[in-house]
Amino acid sequence: MHYPLAINIIEAAERIKPYINRTPILTSHLINELLDADIYFKCENMQKAGAFKSRGACNTVFSLADSELQRGVATHSSGNHAAALARAASLRGVKAYMVMPEDSSKVKVEAVKSYGGIITFCIPTLEARETTLQKVINDTNAIEIHPYNNYNIISGQATAAKELIEDVKDLDIIMAPVGGGGLLSGTALSTHYFSPNTKVIAAEPEQADDAFQSFYQHKFIPSINPNTIADGLRTSLGTLTYPIIRDHVHQIVTVSEDSIVKAMRLVWERMKIIIETSSAVTVAAIMENKFEHHNQKIGIIISGGNVDLDDLPWIISK
Amino acid sequence: MHYPLAINIIEAAERIKPYINRTPILTSHLINELLDADIYFKCENMQKAGAFKSRGACNTVFSLADSELQRGVATHSSGNHAAALARAASLRGVKAYMVMPEDSSKVKVEAVKSYGGIITFCIPTLEARETTLQKVINDTNAIEIHPYNNYNIISGQATAAKELIEDVKDLDIIMAPVGGGGLLSGTALSTHYFSPNTKVIAAEPEQADDAFQSFYQHKFIPSINPNTIADGLRTSLGTLTYPIIRDHVHQIVTVSEDSIVKAMRLVWERMKIIIETSSAVTVAAIMENKFEHHNQKIGIIISGGNVDLDDLPWIISK
Repeated sequence: MHYPLAINIIEAAERIKPYINRTPILTSHLINELLDADIYFKCENMQKAGAFKSRGACNTVFSLADSELQRGVATHSSGNHAAALARAASLRGVKAYMVMPEDSSKVKVEAVKSYGGIITFCIPTLEARETTLQKVINDTNAIEIHPYNNYNIISGQATAAKELIEDVKDLDIIMAPVGGGGLLSGTALSTHYFSPNTKVIAAEPEQADDAFQSFYQHKFIPSINPNTIADGLRTSLGTLTYPIIRDHVHQIVTVSEDSIVKAMRLVWERMKIIIETSSAVTVAAIMENKFEHHNQKIGIIISGGNVDLDDLPWIISK
Repeated sequence: MHYPLAINIIEAAERIKPYINRTPILTSHLINELLDADIYFKCENMQKAGAFKSRGACNTVFSLADSELQRGVATHSSGNHAAALARAASLRGVKAYMVMPEDSSKVKVEAVKSYGGIITFCIPTLEARETTLQKVINDTNAIEIHPYNNYNIISGQATAAKELIEDVKDLDIIMAPVGGGGLLSGTALSTHYFSPNTKVIAAEPEQADDAFQSFYQHKFIPSINPNTIADGLRTSLGTLTYPIIRDHVHQIVTVSEDSIVKAMRLVWERMKIIIETSSAVTVAAIMENKFEHHNQKIGIIISGGNVDLDDLPWIISK
């Protein structure tokens, strides 16, 4: 099995077109002045179900045959993949079984419920998520749709960068956050195929730095129960996402928890858009001067906007 | 002196072009489904200084002669006009004296300071604002730039609706909030000149309903110290804005405080954009079924996005 090809990403874009938003790309003179760069925000926070995950979920669900889907789909996810998959399953008319850690944000749980997803909660460790999912699959015979370790998912996520590349020419850099690596590997492939002179730089929380460690130690190193406010980035790379990242990402940088919250608030205040903690790591990396960004033309994939408005990091931290 | 003409609005748009953003127009399938309408949000929350006020302030400051501006500009404002005027003055290289009520939101005070505005605080009544401003003008000989009772301001604010009309064809309705009436009168004139088949519907807090009262009692009725969470809408109509509104607005509806907060939160959660309380009254009017909105193509001018993120209405109300 080889990496997704350009044609797989082009087909994914066609396949999911009726079910997703072509999200806007926003800019802010003020942010550009503050960060001394020319930044284009690809607003996947305004994607269906509030995150890029709808792309991969729709591509996967609509790639499968009716016979494969008849018992429904199942997955474990801290939230955005679960909501996106529940939505995709509901569009296709099949059941969706979701294993979610019990500390998932309320708004993400509500979103899954609103799309008819059937939730089983578990304790927030990777092991518990995997064993609980196995039990659900044994009980239901549903087909597992992994959040990122799946080439159809990766090809779907790749369509966000494809749109960004189509809409903004001659980007020096494309940035994405990295958790399990679905978005990042897709972004890296789209950049490799459709804008080969553009560098791909990923950002990751210091406190969940498995991708950083794997990338620079040249071997797959999973993270064990990482503790970061960026709840979408607590997962480890997968066996399919790691090699793509190894081969097609140019740099991975890490950021502190404090700067994630500062970057999130900066974007809220200055751009007037709502982004979640996991989306703020890229902006935090620029604020922290973690790579050469001055005067660069940078596309940033804002991964999601699902935030519990009753529970904001700068308010609970008081 | 006659109302601003179409040519005045066209000239205003040319004059301010280098200094303002052509703001994006965003849509949300989910909001459309929830509200059973086809809604286009003109995002003046993403305007320079975070509100449509930059349009009128730039148009006015860049319409004046150097000789008129040499002692600086002065105004009273709860915030967005002050920030916009301070910014416009700074772009033109002149001083800006601002009288602000002492309960102005922190973020709005900071914005004025960031543009070099010189602030005098006063108690939050119209009388105190006016007498304090008079004293400042006596001391400085600055030229007063009224927040809305000024045809250059009105022509500037009118450019937001002009852009909306250019970008979205065949709107059935254009909505704007109404406080002092600068945005609403400008919106009504642009609609009259550039899209005469479109209806203009304004929304106002029940607890600051002077425009509603004036409109339906066919005489100018000021509001006395109104109490609404929509801090930008506490001002009364002006002698220049009232007649334009009387002649060119089709309907004014009022909304409750509770629905303003609900509408604000709905837009934050579903559209992932940050809008201030004053911008939420239009959405609240649709949620409250205050006019025939079903299946209508509606353009809404989202007036601003300056919110104190430490002080959100759904959190302090706990």
